[in-house]
Amino acid sequence: MKIIRSIAEMQAFSEEARMQGKKISFVPTMGFLHEGHLHLIRQARTMGDVLIVSIFVNPIQFGPSEDFKQYPRDWDRDAHLCESGGADVIFAPIVEEMYPEGFQTMVNVPHLSQNLCGISRPTHFQGVATVVAKLFNCTKPHVALFGEKDFQQLAVIKRMVLDLNVDINIISVPTVREAEGLAMSSRNTYLSAEERRSALSLSKALFKVRELFQNGERNARVLIDTTREIITREEGAAIDYIKICDTATLQDVDTITRPAVMALAVKIGNARLIDNVVLKE
Amino acid sequence: MKIIRSIAEMQAFSEEARMQGKKISFVPTMGFLHEGHLHLIRQARTMGDVLIVSIFVNPIQFGPSEDFKQYPRDWDRDAHLCESGGADVIFAPIVEEMYPEGFQTMVNVPHLSQNLCGISRPTHFQGVATVVAKLFNCTKPHVALFGEKDFQQLAVIKRMVLDLNVDINIISVPTVREAEGLAMSSRNTYLSAEERRSALSLSKALFKVRELFQNGERNARVLIDTTREIITREEGAAIDYIKICDTATLQDVDTITRPAVMALAVKIGNARLIDNVVLKE
Repeated sequence: MKIIRSIAEMQAFSEEARMQGKKISFVPTMGFLHEGHLHLIRQARTMGDVLIVSIFVNPIQFGPSEDFKQYPRDWDRDAHLCESGGADVIFAPIVEEMYPEGFQTMVNVPHLSQNLCGISRPTHFQGVATVVAKLFNCTKPHVALFGEKDFQQLAVIKRMVLDLNVDINIISVPTVREAEGLAMSSRNTYLSAEERRSALSLSKALFKVRELFQNGERNARVLIDTTREIITREEGAAIDYIKICDTATLQDVDTITRPAVMALAVKIGNARLIDNVVLKE
Repeated sequence: MKIIRSIAEMQAFSEEARMQGKKISFVPTMGFLHEGHLHLIRQARTMGDVLIVSIFVNPIQFGPSEDFKQYPRDWDRDAHLCESGGADVIFAPIVEEMYPEGFQTMVNVPHLSQNLCGISRPTHFQGVATVVAKLFNCTKPHVALFGEKDFQQLAVIKRMVLDLNVDINIISVPTVREAEGLAMSSRNTYLSAEERRSALSLSKALFKVRELFQNGERNARVLIDTTREIITREEGAAIDYIKICDTATLQDVDTITRPAVMALAVKIGNARLIDNVVLKE
């Protein structure tokens, strides 16, 4: 497995692979890999001749009061996991080369970035869309894989790819969960044992909502109230939002008549956790 | 010469050419080609194995009160000129495929877009950066050529390419002028014979400024006043701006100590004309 830090070297590597007719698959990550990432990596392995995993904690997607500095990092473990997952290359650029002096270009997907996490993180998705556009230009993949846990991120990236005619196939991969239901996230490492038990209320509520939906409930207010009730039973769970949105526009819906997503963000201790469930017939 | 309207067909064509090891050169235009475009096209011909010229009047770079609808178009003449200049492909996408329903992604280069034309055209460069990013993803060139007449546009595109790690070599080509000095522009077609004579004051003033600079004048105010005086002698010339800016940041300068550009925009009749001269030792 090759480790590449230089952008020019990454581009030359990918250009060479493409010229040889090889298909490149790509998994962008912020490192501190967990089973969810490995799931993406293993699936990407089957979709290309050359598998690139990027590890880059992207400063511009964190707000000024967010956890950029304390975001967990473990290079040795990550490298080992990438290799075990079959990666050919880890692309790990340095911040100073990604954002040189005078950097100013931003890719913005305004409507899809507004609701849900965009309310409390107004510059987050601009930072995500911009870094993903950059990483695509660095790694030049044919296919790129993203997890469905970050539902809004996935919607933003799909829209950007469509709107800017980026010739890359975006594959979404279902959320991987712990045995008890908790969605895998690098930020789960912030949780104490007790907080982790509280955090189980998120998936528990979402599974309950899915069940109610399957039994015919279409009223968003009822489903949201059910979720709120289950989560607020836990001490120390501070709800950022619980919403039901149209999967295409991410606008709030009152009555579910088309595919919708219940998405939520809850702060438990120092961890802001997100999760979602798609509601469709 | 091939004419391609479909984005998918354009991408497949370019991908195939790249796989064959061919170098692709690209000249984006809004059509109504003149000698300035032909100069770009002829130079691009020498820089690649496959030469693509795009013709697309981009609605999102026009403001609501600007000349999108009356912007001059002449498909047959353009096609003939592209062929005579050695183009292999004209890429002429349709507006509805470039901007489908739900389109929302914008590429923004905020600092370089602010001054000069950005003052009276606040959304113009966002529209330019976005369409150029799209055209690059459609045509997948190795090298793309832009005229120096649109100095700010060139600065915005160079910055976007650098910031987003777009792996394309951007070549700038000096402004082509009529014998009397008027910078070539598709919008010159809006000028009556009399207005065309008035328009000569722009290049006349810029050449005078270059001469004063070469003779040691470094005070921006003096150079701007000289220009204003020459242009306001002409009846019907309405100055939008005359500025001297740092070529790197496009911020106004008072005293020229580093490479600078005098740039101006003047409305003569229905034509808003721009021109510039670089001032460096």
